[in-house]
This record gives sequence, structure tokens and C-alpha cells, in this order.
Amino acid sequence: MGFERRMGGKMKKLKIALFQYPDYKIPASGYGPKQLIIELLARGFHKRGHKVSTFATADSQLPGEIIKISPKGINEGLNDNPEIQPDIERIYRSLAIGELIRRSSDFDIIHNHAGFTLLPVVQVLKSKVFHTLHGTYTNKHYRRIFKQYAQNGYYVPISNAQAKTLPPKVNCTEVIYHGIRINDFNFNSQPLEKTLLFLGRLAKIKGVHTAIRVAKQTGYKLIIAGPIDIARRGGKEYFAKEIKPHIDGKKIIYVGEVNHSQKKKLLRKSQALLFPVEWEEAFGLVMIEAMACGTPVIAYDCGSPAEIITDSLTGYICPKGDLEAMIEAVLKIDQIDRAVCRKAAEERFSDEKMVDNYLKLFMEKNEKNSKI
Amino acid sequence: MGFERRMGGKMKKLKIALFQYPDYKIPASGYGPKQLIIELLARGFHKRGHKVSTFATADSQLPGEIIKISPKGINEGLNDNPEIQPDIERIYRSLAIGELIRRSSDFDIIHNHAGFTLLPVVQVLKSKVFHTLHGTYTNKHYRRIFKQYAQNGYYVPISNAQAKTLPPKVNCTEVIYHGIRINDFNFNSQPLEKTLLFLGRLAKIKGVHTAIRVAKQTGYKLIIAGPIDIARRGGKEYFAKEIKPHIDGKKIIYVGEVNHSQKKKLLRKSQALLFPVEWEEAFGLVMIEAMACGTPVIAYDCGSPAEIITDSLTGYICPKGDLEAMIEAVLKIDQIDRAVCRKAAEERFSDEKMVDNYLKLFMEKNEKNSKI
Repeated sequence: MGFERRMGGKMKKLKIALFQYPDYKIPASGYGPKQLIIELLARGFHKRGHKVSTFATADSQLPGEIIKISPKGINEGLNDNPEIQPDIERIYRSLAIGELIRRSSDFDIIHNHAGFTLLPVVQVLKSKVFHTLHGTYTNKHYRRIFKQYAQNGYYVPISNAQAKTLPPKVNCTEVIYHGIRINDFNFNSQPLEKTLLFLGRLAKIKGVHTAIRVAKQTGYKLIIAGPIDIARRGGKEYFAKEIKPHIDGKKIIYVGEVNHSQKKKLLRKSQALLFPVEWEEAFGLVMIEAMACGTPVIAYDCGSPAEIITDSLTGYICPKGDLEAMIEAVLKIDQIDRAVCRKAAEERFSDEKMVDNYLKLFMEKNEKNSKI
Repeated sequence: MGFERRMGGKMKKLKIALFQYPDYKIPASGYGPKQLIIELLARGFHKRGHKVSTFATADSQLPGEIIKISPKGINEGLNDNPEIQPDIERIYRSLAIGELIRRSSDFDIIHNHAGFTLLPVVQVLKSKVFHTLHGTYTNKHYRRIFKQYAQNGYYVPISNAQAKTLPPKVNCTEVIYHGIRINDFNFNSQPLEKTLLFLGRLAKIKGVHTAIRVAKQTGYKLIIAGPIDIARRGGKEYFAKEIKPHIDGKKIIYVGEVNHSQKKKLLRKSQALLFPVEWEEAFGLVMIEAMACGTPVIAYDCGSPAEIITDSLTGYICPKGDLEAMIEAVLKIDQIDRAVCRKAAEERFSDEKMVDNYLKLFMEKNEKNSKI
């Protein structure tokens, strides 16, 4: 809590709302990087004595207040009627927005994790609003809404790469990187030999097909973990055509979606995490989770990886789309010191550091009376 | 304009916003019953001298002001990137909400056609809000949002059947039936012999499979027209399994989605419209379009049909799910006087009547100063 000490221990206590849509409960039982960050922030703000209110499912478990929006997660079997499925998301998102409007004057700070759909509502909220965006928004349709509401709240980029993708007039703050509970991940200096890992949503833009090619050409074993991307158009077909035919259960292994403890085990035992993304990755939480286990990351230079991974020190950054470079990187993976990876994670990507950075930002902006 | 005359010609001119999401342009080129009602209301309000502002696509054509939310319809090829398709709806719905909040004090009346997603926002709008709901909302998830926002605006039911499905505390007004431009439909006393029509979204709850059974068992020809329900889960499979195998191009004919003039032609030439719905139909615009052509309607008693069709006079109302009754009805369709159908449409379901009813309601509530 270095920041608080610097403030002379006289830190004002804030009333902070963490806003999101109740897609999954918190802590998430399976896939849910956004839910993990929200959980760590809620715990961190609470631990430092601030009043935290989190918009969440009724079955979430978090310190502070839970503002219950839905009985369970929108994507966790809340509804059993396929005919009305598209409306389920609409109903509970609307209910969340309504409750935020109603409660808005109860908070000093609204920390938005629901992305661009909240932007038009900011004009009627009575607190300072900070947006932590979890995606990349280069498409012209996104730019239309960000441009229109560029000054409605503070935008906190999660990487310089993400900041670059936002329209120029957006009211950006300094970058705050995501953090994780480093000690939740055990360092491992002795991974399984010749074992690579792909971990994430099984979508084309995440490059699962590239990971498969790299494994085949290096003779390494590849473990693939993550949910099939059924929500997006083309996701099922991608899995069926580009991934499934290569799974042999020996060299190319698919273990399905994994929970947090399975994920840690997979990260720990791998020699490297492959991150061959084809889009401007905004952050990529799995990279710092790998580092915390001592596992280096081999990534394409596309979005945030070059900020998170130090080339030749905590992994390798390969030119975008350069398969040969990625293969070479695998073949020299032994040159990376796993202890250095762990140390980098501790110093740069701890939850404590993330929480302190947000609180510092909130305090600074809260002292200025100008409502933005 | 009977109502205005009764008011002594001294009708105050209102500033009316017609609010909807820009799913399709107006007038709609294909399927779009909601867009048709909004078009008729915009034209009707404008014709009577009120200031109308319609939230719509930029390529819509309507009298009064068009508040342009998207370049074209969300469902009309606005986006060419499947990866972000779910966000396209979210972006443009959010932009519409933002613009409504921003402009809200410009209007006396906001007439909401966007359904329940607007409810939580009503608390910050500065005009009187009237909700015309276009669906049926019996599922418990819908009830949750309607119950919470039961007093946020006036709910105008489009049928007594729909009114019954709303939670008890909802602030309901009298029923206002939909209306159409009757003279846009040509009366036809001589339809093609032994020809039945199914016209609507090809979904299970609309009963296309029942229409097929009725046609097969009576020996009538059946023409099926309407879009395959690809947006909903199970919609494609329903078409593939329950409809497609029966299409032979002779007795069971599928003509695809139709535009307005094709629709009128099909309605006119049929001996009866089949309406074998399996859900609580809130209104069913196609029934009054059929009547305007002189075409009787054979419907299951499920939701609104029994209010719109007078049994044995403008069609037949069969007990819900009673296939035999529907077959019998087809066999005695000659007993219905098509001129009576036309006359009923003229008297009960004209756009003029609908427009006057809404204006009467708006004026009444607008005179009371209480904001609701």
C-alpha cells in the first residue's frame, strides 16, 4: 500500500460502484477474465477501507455490497426458453442500467466494466465515471459511439496498444495494467518437456490454428484449453474445420474449458504459452498468469504483447503472422530464465499494484470538483 | 378526424417523438410490422399538424423530423464483420437511447415502440412516455422488468389479450388496436379456389406446421410466405425439419419473404388466411390486412384473434390446438361473406382511427400536469 503511505495515511474513503452486466457469477467458475479483474478490484478496494458496491448476480460472493441484478449469470443457464434467449441479455442489461441510474448519487466513483453500452447513460449519472474497457474497438461502428461520447467519463486504457486504438478526442488517463494475485500461482522451474499451451477462447482471431502448426512443425506437444466460441457467428465452424481435425489426444490435446485451478496447473507445467493473436489484443490476462508460473510467452506482435513480454527475457515477440519466427522461438525456449518471468510478474502485474493505481487515479480526479 | 372536431377544432399541437431502434428502414422493404405501424403513426400525426420526430435509419423516408441513428438498418447489412455482429445491435441501440435522453425535453410526448429495454431509462426522461408494446411478455424474466417499472409511463395495450398478460400493477390505458391504410388493399370477391395462405415469420409458435397439416387434409393448396427465423435459436432447424420437407411447389408452395405489394397480392387471392398460433398473439397485423382484402381468417383461440375476428362472420376461431376444428373451418369457408370482412376492417381497423385514438389519449394525459 505504497500509495496510501505516500498520502500520509490520510486517504479519504471512497464510495465506489463496480459496474458490469451479470454475464457470469463472481468469482467465475470457468472462463471469465473480466470477472477476475472485478473480483480483485472489489477485494482490494474493500481491504483498503473503501465502500464497494458491485453490480453482479445474486449468487456472487464478494466483500462489500452486492447489487443483485439477476438470480444467476446470463450465460449460465438463467433461461430455459430458446425462443426468448436474445431478450434475456436485454432484460438484465436494462435492469442493471436502471439500478445504476437510480443509485448513482450513492457513489463517488462509478467504475464501468460494461464497455461502450454505458456511454450514452453517463450524461445522467451523478458520480465520476471511469471506463475500463476490456476489448479492442478499431471497427468504424465502435468509433462512432466512442467519438460521440469521448468526454463522458475518464477512459483508463489497460495497455498503450489499447489507448492507440481509441479515437483521438477520447478523455484518456494514464495506462493501468491488469494485475493478478501472484501468490495464487506457484512458480515452477521444471515444466514438462516439449509441452506448449494454448489457453483462451477458441476463436480465429486468437490464432489456435497457428498454435497447432507451430506444435506440429517443432514436434512439441500442444495442449489446447478454452471454450468453443459459440456466441459469435462462425465460431462453431472454425472449431469444426480448423481445430477438431488436428486433435489426436497425443500430440494435439483439447481439454475443453477449464476452471481456475485447472488453468494454473496447465500454465505451470508448460514450457511456453503460445499467444499467436491476429487482432490488436487489448491486454491478454493469460500472459501474466503464465509469467507468474515462470512460464515464458511466445506471441505475435499484435496489440499489447510487446508491452507485457520483454523480448528474449520473459518470452519472445515474433513479427505478426511470422510462423517461422514462432517456430524458432519455441526451439530456443530453454534460453529463457523462468525465475526472471516470475519476478517480472511480481514487480509489474500484481493485484496490489493495480488496485493502488486505480485508487490513486480515483483520488486525484475526485479532488478536482469538475464533474466529467 | 372525428376526435378533433369534437374538441372544437382547438386541438393543441403536440411535439411527439416516435422512439424505436433502427432495425429496418421505414417504410420497410420486406418484413416489418412494427415499422409499418410507426410509419402510419408518423404520417397521421404529421397530417393533423403535430410535430413528429422519428428515431430511424438515415435512409428512412417519413414526414416530419428523422432523428438519424444509423446509416441503415441493423438487420439490413449494416455490418460486414461477423466477429462483431452482436455488438452492432448494442452500439446502435445505445446511440438511440443516448439521443433520446439528450433530446427528451424537446418533446411533449415520447411514444415508445422499443419495448421493455427503454423502461429503466424513463426515470430520466423529461416528457410523458407512452409504451406501445409489440410482443407478449408472459415469461417470468419479462415480468421482472415490467413489475419493477410498472409506473414508468403509460402502457397502451394493442389488444385485451395483451393487456391480460401484463403484471397487475402496470399503468395501463385503454386498448388501442392497430390500424392500416384500408384503401391500400384492394377488395377481392373472387379469390383463387381452394387456396390458403400462411403469412408471417416462419417460427414454431406461429404454427406453420399446422397450416401444412390443414392444407394436406383438406386438399387445399397452401402458399407459405415469410422470412425463415434465423435470429432465434432453433429457427433454422424448425424450417429444415418441419417445413422444408413438405414443400413440393404444387400443393405446398414457399415463396420466401415478401414485400408489401407481393403480400397484398397473396392476401387478395387466397380464400382464407390460416393463423394457427401457439402463443398468446398480442395483435397479428396480417389478420386485419387479410380482412381488408375481404379474406377471412381461420385462427386458433390464442391471444388476440378472438377480438379481431368475429367467429362465423369474418372468419373462424378454433379452440387452441384443435386441428379438426380448423379443417372443418376450411371446408365451410364459403359461408363467410367477403364483403363483411372488408367492412369490418374499414370500421374497426383503419389507420385514421388508430391515429385519432392515440392523439386523444396523448391530449388527455398531457392536460394533466402530473408527470408519470
